Amino acid sequence: MTALIDSAAARVEWIRSRMRLLAAVREKFAETRPFEGHRIGMSLHIEPKTAVLLETLAAGGAEIVGTGNHGSTQDDVVAYLQNQGMTLFGRRDDSLDQHHANVASVLDATPDILLDNGADLAAGIVARGAGATLIGGTEETTSGGDRLRSELLGQVPFPVIVINDSMLKQLGENKHAVGQSVVESFMRITNLMIPGRRFVVVGYGWCGRGVAQYLRALGGKVAVAEVDELKAFEAALDGFRVDTADGLAGWGEVFITATGRPNVLTMSAIDRMGDGAILANCGHFPWEIDTASLRTSATATRAIDDTIERIELPNGRHVILIAGGRMFNLAGTAPKGNSLDSMDLGFLLQVLSLERVATGAGTLVAGAQPVPDDLEREIARRMVAAMGASL
Amino acid sequence: MTALIDSAAARVEWIRSRMRLLAAVREKFAETRPFEGHRIGMSLHIEPKTAVLLETLAAGGAEIVGTGNHGSTQDDVVAYLQNQGMTLFGRRDDSLDQHHANVASVLDATPDILLDNGADLAAGIVARGAGATLIGGTEETTSGGDRLRSELLGQVPFPVIVINDSMLKQLGENKHAVGQSVVESFMRITNLMIPGRRFVVVGYGWCGRGVAQYLRALGGKVAVAEVDELKAFEAALDGFRVDTADGLAGWGEVFITATGRPNVLTMSAIDRMGDGAILANCGHFPWEIDTASLRTSATATRAIDDTIERIELPNGRHVILIAGGRMFNLAGTAPKGNSLDSMDLGFLLQVLSLERVATGAGTLVAGAQPVPDDLEREIARRMVAAMGASL
Amino acid sequence: MTALIDSAAARVEWIRSRMRLLAAVREKFAETRPFEGHRIGMSLHIEPKTAVLLETLAAGGAEIVGTGNHGSTQDDVVAYLQNQGMTLFGRRDDSLDQHHANVASVLDATPDILLDNGADLAAGIVARGAGATLIGGTEETTSGGDRLRSELLGQVPFPVIVINDSMLKQLGENKHAVGQSVVESFMRITNLMIPGRRFVVVGYGWCGRGVAQYLRALGGKVAVAEVDELKAFEAALDGFRVDTADGLAGWGEVFITATGRPNVLTMSAIDRMGDGAILANCGHFPWEIDTASLRTSATATRAIDDTIERIELPNGRHVILIAGGRMFNLAGTAPKGNSLDSMDLGFLLQVLSLERVATGAGTLVAGAQPVPDDLEREIARRMVAAMGASL
Amino acid sequence: MTALIDSAAARVEWIRSRMRLLAAVREKFAETRPFEGHRIGMSLHIEPKTAVLLETLAAGGAEIVGTGNHGSTQDDVVAYLQNQGMTLFGRRDDSLDQHHANVASVLDATPDILLDNGADLAAGIVARGAGATLIGGTEETTSGGDRLRSELLGQVPFPVIVINDSMLKQLGENKHAVGQSVVESFMRITNLMIPGRRFVVVGYGWCGRGVAQYLRALGGKVAVAEVDELKAFEAALDGFRVDTADGLAGWGEVFITATGRPNVLTMSAIDRMGDGAILANCGHFPWEIDTASLRTSATATRAIDDTIERIELPNGRHVILIAGGRMFNLAGTAPKGNSLDSMDLGFLLQVLSLERVATGAGTLVAGAQPVPDDLEREIARRMVAAMGASL
Repeated sequence: MTALIDSAAARVEWIRSRMRLLAAVREKFAETRPFEGHRIGMSLHIEPKTAVLLETLAAGGAEIVGTGNHGSTQDDVVAYLQNQGMTLFGRRDDSLDQHHANVASVLDATPDILLDNGADLAAGIVARGAGATLIGGTEETTSGGDRLRSELLGQVPFPVIVINDSMLKQLGENKHAVGQSVVESFMRITNLMIPGRRFVVVGYGWCGRGVAQYLRALGGKVAVAEVDELKAFEAALDGFRVDTADGLAGWGEVFITATGRPNVLTMSAIDRMGDGAILANCGHFPWEIDTASLRTSATATRAIDDTIERIELPNGRHVILIAGGRMFNLAGTAPKGNSLDSMDLGFLLQVLSLERVATGAGTLVAGAQPVPDDLEREIARRMVAAMGASL
Repeated sequence: MTALIDSAAARVEWIRSRMRLLAAVREKFAETRPFEGHRIGMSLHIEPKTAVLLETLAAGGAEIVGTGNHGSTQDDVVAYLQNQGMTLFGRRDDSLDQHHANVASVLDATPDILLDNGADLAAGIVARGAGATLIGGTEETTSGGDRLRSELLGQVPFPVIVINDSMLKQLGENKHAVGQSVVESFMRITNLMIPGRRFVVVGYGWCGRGVAQYLRALGGKVAVAEVDELKAFEAALDGFRVDTADGLAGWGEVFITATGRPNVLTMSAIDRMGDGAILANCGHFPWEIDTASLRTSATATRAIDDTIERIELPNGRHVILIAGGRMFNLAGTAPKGNSLDSMDLGFLLQVLSLERVATGAGTLVAGAQPVPDDLEREIARRMVAAMGASL
Repeated sequence: MTALIDSAAARVEWIRSRMRLLAAVREKFAETRPFEGHRIGMSLHIEPKTAVLLETLAAGGAEIVGTGNHGSTQDDVVAYLQNQGMTLFGRRDDSLDQHHANVASVLDATPDILLDNGADLAAGIVARGAGATLIGGTEETTSGGDRLRSELLGQVPFPVIVINDSMLKQLGENKHAVGQSVVESFMRITNLMIPGRRFVVVGYGWCGRGVAQYLRALGGKVAVAEVDELKAFEAALDGFRVDTADGLAGWGEVFITATGRPNVLTMSAIDRMGDGAILANCGHFPWEIDTASLRTSATATRAIDDTIERIELPNGRHVILIAGGRMFNLAGTAPKGNSLDSMDLGFLLQVLSLERVATGAGTLVAGAQPVPDDLEREIARRMVAAMGASL
Repeated sequence: MTALIDSAAARVEWIRSRMRLLAAVREKFAETRPFEGHRIGMSLHIEPKTAVLLETLAAGGAEIVGTGNHGSTQDDVVAYLQNQGMTLFGRRDDSLDQHHANVASVLDATPDILLDNGADLAAGIVARGAGATLIGGTEETTSGGDRLRSELLGQVPFPVIVINDSMLKQLGENKHAVGQSVVESFMRITNLMIPGRRFVVVGYGWCGRGVAQYLRALGGKVAVAEVDELKAFEAALDGFRVDTADGLAGWGEVFITATGRPNVLTMSAIDRMGDGAILANCGHFPWEIDTASLRTSATATRAIDDTIERIELPNGRHVILIAGGRMFNLAGTAPKGNSLDSMDLGFLLQVLSLERVATGAGTLVAGAQPVPDDLEREIARRMVAAMGASL
């Protein structure tokens, strides 16, 4: 147990020392104690970065009761945080039933503030008819925000600030951090040269913009496939070749999907690709490449290592599938994910939004809403200052 | 007269051959004749590019009655267009009174559609109480749109589509075309090297983004001064040094304002600048550099040529003022202004919006409104195709 | 006469104030007087920038006797310099015979140091058998250097430092200054957008590298045609599409030659180009585009303005020829040529090399030679310091 | 044993499939058999990429007898190659004495061609007085080339082609591949954001150029410290801030050495750095950062993980040392080193140079020499073609 705790402690310390925005908040929270007397119920991926987020809330007086995502919980981080007095449920090898039980345990602890992910806790509260005792909460993801605005619309009597709607998050995380992690992961996993290589980026939303821009900056030849006219226009003016995925299939050597939508890279395109084309996805869900059809039509499949798969096609050519079509920027050996700086920003959005819920819920409306404008500006100001700049 | 016409004809022909989006519309309009029986009243800067716009409307059956901006009308272009049967009022050396008389003459002709600029025609119609006979119109500028939404709010009974609100225009013209024309004009006017030179761009709106990006692309060291937190954040993530104008005054060698706001470069900053600092503005109005105070405090002023002025300061240093603080990307010898491609795009927005007014005014509301979304997408599609791309 | 002098004086003053490296040398020369008692014979293009070079030499005690290039002499600058006591021969509208007479007049004045261009003065000295009285000289151009090393090899008994061989000049002028002036001239002359446009740069020497890099930096899609394997390799690694001129003919919209060699863009490529393709050259000689064949095969030719020509081809398409195939970065209305900063650097090479000739000819060998290494390093140090940097 | 072989086989297969230049040579060698009857003695780092090199030589008829570098041999690759009939000595955990014995064993096998690294085999041959039986060889490194030209000058009676002198290798590997691997490693090891971060690159040789260019391309603010005037000039024109390491110490957040020289980052600079500054080296030898003085003066040192070390300074600040000052682009978990494409190029230089030695030694001179020009051009042509380009 002590070994587990020590292992996490060293990693957490490095991260903590590089998350300077959170560090400043932690110091202030230790004085102002905005969460004194509040119990925060959390559902969020548990890794060393999360630990620094939770420490910050605890420094503000919060009692933490939480659980991780199914299958990705890092047990040493759980041990490290439990050792600091937090109540955390779950282990990496939990069954799905056990995971649901963990979520229920969080709700059983009757938190009055939620730090939610995918609206799992909010949906549980609604199902229990227990909304009245909640002050409010935050929701990390866009898909959770969508759920609050459709399936749960009108049923959540407390305010929920949707973090991912923030323009700061779109720019800082979806464009720059994902763009950076994609080029890092491509090099780390494939060991291939970027200069001169032909890349097709499917999608020109915030992630796609970042990915296309960073690949080109490193010397790649980059084309963009985009069905939305306005985004296609922006990509063309930004100097990218723009065409359909099918139209680019024969030209590209590497195809990276970043649309958030299912089946944007289908057999129609894959059948046109040159021998050895590489397919990777950086969108949240593993559905952008039609891997089901790909595997069905494959004449043979072989794993090169734990991330690279070689798939033979009936047309005599083969393609390389990275990470089985899951987010390849979180795959392979030693993936680091989004940069500490961008996580520092994202968590600052979280902790200040939670502080607003705790101390100013009266200024908020019931249901899903964006980060308040004054908070966005305050956070932008801090991030800019942390980068050595002034306004 | 014939010489005047011929001079304009050669220039117009080159421009026409490079405005391929308009060319396609002109062909179609010749068949569909959407403006048959309509009289378009126009108020817009008259130069060779404008001629191609007006020809396109005329091909669609429109009768054109118009006038230019005060002081910038190109007489040979007027002659050229009059020779084609259009009714145009005004000459370059008209007095302001004469200019007002020209506007009145346009209104006297009782147009039923307006192609307006600064809401001058719309205001005249309102003053005459003559709105009922109008089908609708377009407004080129943001400041005209603002006037329609404030001073003229509720008084314009017909629809006016505000062209400059279009995201296509922001991207295509304000970012890329202005960015390009600023680097061209800086080199053309000053003959100075960009690589390694220290530039301060004041403002990070669409124009500022373009200017900062293009100067950096050419090797300039670029810092951004921006008071809006969210834009400052974007600039910092885009890798620019961000600071106040005063904070950057001692560092910069060249200062370019692009904010649209008055007095963003004041004596407080100018007094801190190094000897020989260069001041230029690319915003629409000549008020961003506080030239009044600069001239008041100057100990001596000398014109180097028709665009470059050397101004001695009481502190023993001097600054160089470009184009007297007016839009320097339209100044000097042989300025070309925004690229033909971007004008082609902007005029496509104009002619298709006017077609919508003529043929589908019932789908529009009274007063100022943005370009309809389906038109935006249609135009994006055509521009992308013209750049050799597909969706 | 006074009007001529005044017109030049204002232009020269601006340039002088921006050539800071020369300014520092001028001050030092005024003390050290390295050219005291020497007569410098000059053959060089006479424009305002040249005036600042000659003033610097005069400040060092030199007597100046010189002439310009045939057909490009600026008469007001000649008047301005004569007014300062220099002996200059020639006017813009001199016949070729008169030009040869001017060169002879320079030699008749028995200079003991040469500031040569194309080895015209050196060849004259050799023809007169007058080399013995010469201390040495400089040669501005590569072609002059070639002439000294072939036709005049072994016949020049005095040292000649070839300025254009300097790596500083290659980098500072041929790469960065030409690259910059080409993008400026393309925008100024054609008024076309660079982002998204397809450019073919023929040649990847120093000029071609600069042109390709700057066009891409502004958002252009750039391909390179290069026959040398090693340069083609470099271009490919730098991320450019590489192909033959013929292979790129159908893809490109704009073709810019920068090879220094004749007939690199022939009818074979031109016949494959799309309608409206634009042809321009930035190499020193007007021979890179095969304009002779182009004009012979043209079915019609029309001047759009003084720089743009439209040429109809038998295949029904047309091409646009810029500046008749001459250096288009010095063509059109208000061309500025290489930046003042790069000229400051080039002239610093000139004046310090001439100083070395005057004061240390014994350290040099007879005939053509590069700028001494210690001078190159000294000049690099000064340029770097002028750009605000330290070593 | 079989497990070891299988583990290597999968990795080697992926690499082989991506080294297309070598693949083409392997096919040709299988027909032409240039090494038939020759025994190649090898001393080179043994990893999966090396296996593809050796297979290619074996396909050409070579008998391979070799050993790896001390301490870096990958045992599974050795097993895999031994299984194919090659004679390889050494294991990862060999003592230095054992390593020397391995080198001796290679020489004992009396190879007639050398594939050398650091001139270890050549020196052994000279010591044994056995040069007369050698046809010739290649030398991978610059330091080996230096040794042949100094310590061993005149003593090597056979030709040795020095691979690293090749301009192709400088551009393809030292600039682009190292530049790419440095940005990948920085992100992978530190998980920090590059945009907006302040980097100091020490050295502007081929590696430094690549590192500076790629960091800037990703949005980093990059300054260069360089003592050579000509390189400093190039860096300044390329738009980088240039200053001394001491002058940049207070500004930078991350310092990367790439000079090849000892002690370029000393306590004088380190003492001026801000709290948390990061120090990393990508030069071949671990001597560029003065880690000895750093450790001596440290008040405390703690390992964050196997690559990141936190060192407390007497001035109350701390620095982060990456990989103990060794090549950090080969350090940490899952480093991939230079890209497969660049290794394909480097190995192509090796195999064609060895073919020249085997079949045309008469065209070579005794001692160290560069890759023959015709080979360089041939290889450039193949690389360019592999990147989809034509000449």
